[in-house]
Amino acid sequence: MRQVYLDHAAATPVRREVLEAMLPYFRERWGNPSAVYDLGAEIKDVLDAQREQVAQLIGAQGDEVVFTSSGAEANNLAIKGAALANLKKGRHLVVSGIEHHSVLNSARFLEKFHDFEVTFLPVDKYGLVDPERLRKVLSPATVLVSIQHASNEIGTIQNIVDLAAICHDQGVLFHTDAVATAGQTPIDVQGMGVDLLTISGPALGGPKGVGAMYFRRRLRLVPQIHGGIQENGRRGGTENVPGIVGLGRAAALAREELEEKARHLAALRDPLVAGIKERVPGVIHTGHPVNRLPGHASFCVEGIEGEALLFMLSPAGIYANTGSACASKALKTSPVLCALGIRPDLAQGSIVFTFSRDNTVEDGQYVLEHLPKAVERLRSFSPVWRKKMAAAAGGGR
Amino acid sequence: MRQVYLDHAAATPVRREVLEAMLPYFRERWGNPSAVYDLGAEIKDVLDAQREQVAQLIGAQGDEVVFTSSGAEANNLAIKGAALANLKKGRHLVVSGIEHHSVLNSARFLEKFHDFEVTFLPVDKYGLVDPERLRKVLSPATVLVSIQHASNEIGTIQNIVDLAAICHDQGVLFHTDAVATAGQTPIDVQGMGVDLLTISGPALGGPKGVGAMYFRRRLRLVPQIHGGIQENGRRGGTENVPGIVGLGRAAALAREELEEKARHLAALRDPLVAGIKERVPGVIHTGHPVNRLPGHASFCVEGIEGEALLFMLSPAGIYANTGSACASKALKTSPVLCALGIRPDLAQGSIVFTFSRDNTVEDGQYVLEHLPKAVERLRSFSPVWRKKMAAAAGGGR
Repeated sequence: MRQVYLDHAAATPVRREVLEAMLPYFRERWGNPSAVYDLGAEIKDVLDAQREQVAQLIGAQGDEVVFTSSGAEANNLAIKGAALANLKKGRHLVVSGIEHHSVLNSARFLEKFHDFEVTFLPVDKYGLVDPERLRKVLSPATVLVSIQHASNEIGTIQNIVDLAAICHDQGVLFHTDAVATAGQTPIDVQGMGVDLLTISGPALGGPKGVGAMYFRRRLRLVPQIHGGIQENGRRGGTENVPGIVGLGRAAALAREELEEKARHLAALRDPLVAGIKERVPGVIHTGHPVNRLPGHASFCVEGIEGEALLFMLSPAGIYANTGSACASKALKTSPVLCALGIRPDLAQGSIVFTFSRDNTVEDGQYVLEHLPKAVERLRSFSPVWRKKMAAAAGGGR
Repeated sequence: MRQVYLDHAAATPVRREVLEAMLPYFRERWGNPSAVYDLGAEIKDVLDAQREQVAQLIGAQGDEVVFTSSGAEANNLAIKGAALANLKKGRHLVVSGIEHHSVLNSARFLEKFHDFEVTFLPVDKYGLVDPERLRKVLSPATVLVSIQHASNEIGTIQNIVDLAAICHDQGVLFHTDAVATAGQTPIDVQGMGVDLLTISGPALGGPKGVGAMYFRRRLRLVPQIHGGIQENGRRGGTENVPGIVGLGRAAALAREELEEKARHLAALRDPLVAGIKERVPGVIHTGHPVNRLPGHASFCVEGIEGEALLFMLSPAGIYANTGSACASKALKTSPVLCALGIRPDLAQGSIVFTFSRDNTVEDGQYVLEHLPKAVERLRSFSPVWRKKMAAAAGGGR
């Protein structure tokens, strides 16, 4: 049976080149980078070379990169680490209402355990944060603002340049979660003006278990994993050398392929979006119509539940998502979609397709063959939908 | 040239069987365990099977195991997570003075940012914590006591049963860092009476980038990496599936081989200890003479610096350690050795050999050939040592 996997934002295979780069570091070059003798020093150099690769992907310097175990950990370190290092300035934090759980829950932790006040910024119907609204909530006590580069749930890319500039005008640090954009759109920490930025290994085609955080040089951070002198004292624990080597290779590949990949992804996405709008009645395309991730297509389908739709599609070999990966079991109605002003019943019909470079135009066509039938079938089970159709038919009589 | 690597506590190659178990999870079975469809559910089952393997190594149940990115992270989660979940009880913490940096610095973080009072317990000349001394420092405000199972620097194994019993008498939680003992000595969380226990993947022959924490069922924890619902809400971030599979396999192997391995390691260690005592004058064997890790031999050599000795040995292909791995570059004089009452000048001459199952008796013999010469050579450069020898010679006349 044909398999069309379109949930690459949630999980994607490690690239062959990445795994090949990692392999020698399990059983051949396995030294501890903190060791004083040559077996350790050689590994320390390997780590620094990976730091350079990650830095080049985002326009930073190697010594501005800390390796972590995930994008989630990088978000925790950026937010809690920077907030706790700047308590003298104040205890006010601003995040958008549509951030990843690792951002929202880091903010709530600071609220609960460190007496922070957290402002959750609303977004417009496309999921965009309004820069003027951000300006208004900043105060002399604001330590940090965290607004994602793009949303893996609705695809919208924020206008980070404007948002970061407003923060810098007021002497406020700016963090962006770039898990969704790294390797998909260009990132330049200098041009964007961000102080802290989060990257995930697996989102780049690297292995699970590794992430990275950019921090502007000399920015103070309180470590969140306390330990020895690893990562220059910013993150304790023996370094995940094979994982970091995988992330470095993935970052190098992402940089080489960025433009071509973005074009390829958009060429897969656009016919799927157009086809779904055309063939499935009662569907809305969520997120920003233009400023969005190239390989991302997200919808709300009226009269059905997104999860039921996934179960209907998977026997046909089609794999997609409903809402953000981490939360898919935790929440019935997506807070991101609610923040866009989408009605809860419609929000429950969320479906998200995310492409990778290995997908083809035929994959999208296959979805277009199966999706309308699956939606129709599910709606036929729904008393609410049948009633609505009957009413519409009655109204048309 | 012959290579004799005796720094396995700092880093050890991933076992062949472990890497083989991991490989399919990079490019074939790469689903996200949080996904709702079958590709995800299958991975969730795989993770639970690994949880079971780790649990069996330590006499626990699978649902009492949280996977982390390292032993250091597990220590952070155990200490900060349990302390912050029990603030109503009080803000007093007890740790031994010879804990790993991840324990000591987690305690210092609670001191600095959460107004905890931390008691750093002294140890005797063998590195043992006195249970009666522990009893005396407990108060109604004591939330948690953390005392390592064994020290990777001096090899001493603590009497955890007695220490934990005293804590339970007073309703105080007990955590032990078992990074050094897992796979080296039997561990039974029930029999030992511990509430929280730390394990590291690489220390077991698993991959870097993974660790695990045992927690007694129903014990409350505040997550330290906030995120989604992974690890039942106790630890956010996409799970490091290949790493966890590696840890599971390593734990299963460790359980099968435990007794035989401990015998083998002791049979390598004992002749090395005896030989060094015999052939190197002015050397003391650190740690407990009997209650110690089977594959661990640690010494302080008078009149030299441990780091210089390592540099002298590595051209002969001999790799060892001086003090704890994470701290080897951070500190000149080991606080662990000072806590044992060893003079700072003697403590600087620390050298630690840690064996693995792949080492042979010949490896120890090779060290015994080279070590005395290397010590003699270094001492010949030392004015202090020459003066001392001259005085001793003078005194003998």
